[in-house]
Amino acid sequence: MTLHLEKTPTPPYYAVIFTSLRNADDGEDYAVLAERMVELAKQQPGYLGHESVRDSLGVGITVSYWQSEEAIRAWKANLEHLEAQRRGRRDFYAGFEVRIAKVERAYSFAAASA
Amino acid sequence: MTLHLEKTPTPPYYAVIFTSLRNADDGEDYAVLAERMVELAKQQPGYLGHESVRDSLGVGITVSYWQSEEAIRAWKANLEHLEAQRRGRRDFYAGFEVRIAKVERAYSFAAASA
Repeated sequence: MTLHLEKTPTPPYYAVIFTSLRNADDGEDYAVLAERMVELAKQQPGYLGHESVRDSLGVGITVSYWQSEEAIRAWKANLEHLEAQRRGRRDFYAGFEVRIAKVERAYSFAAASA
Repeated sequence: MTLHLEKTPTPPYYAVIFTSLRNADDGEDYAVLAERMVELAKQQPGYLGHESVRDSLGVGITVSYWQSEEAIRAWKANLEHLEAQRRGRRDFYAGFEVRIAKVERAYSFAAASA
């Protein structure tokens, strides 16, 4: 639901690609928890940004960017995040995939403002 | 708009993370072209799958998966794809970011069917 694209540094850095399919149940608890996790991630050492989209069918992709694998491991092991991961498995997701990747090159495009 | 999550092989493999912001103009030409590009990508050597979501605000994330960097380069240089890239810059996108990343590890979750 970010309306901007993240400015990330010159590669290399790391990306966590999280693709998920939500359950059909109510989204309110989920929205609160998701927002809290974004706040928390931003406070983690090595956090570089994230981009996140979910469509009306419940399919979502969130990509978060990190300085190092160590930063990703520390975030995964954060206690409040661990609890959120448990809730996610129990209540929110029909399924998900997590892929940890090293960004090797990147380029961007911005249209001349109309 | 894929309703499934892709089954990708055991890492390592490559991912192209394409995050974009659409223009406000009509989406019909875009939808036709996007569908054609998916068809074309599937025919490329080394294509492993893709996941794609766009929300109602026009923010989209598409991640495509590839066996090698060579496969990514060949896809980028495909003539029909080059023409689509030109149209994208001219007509469809306010901005985008492309990140090429090597997937180093991955794991998945599937809820017990309810």
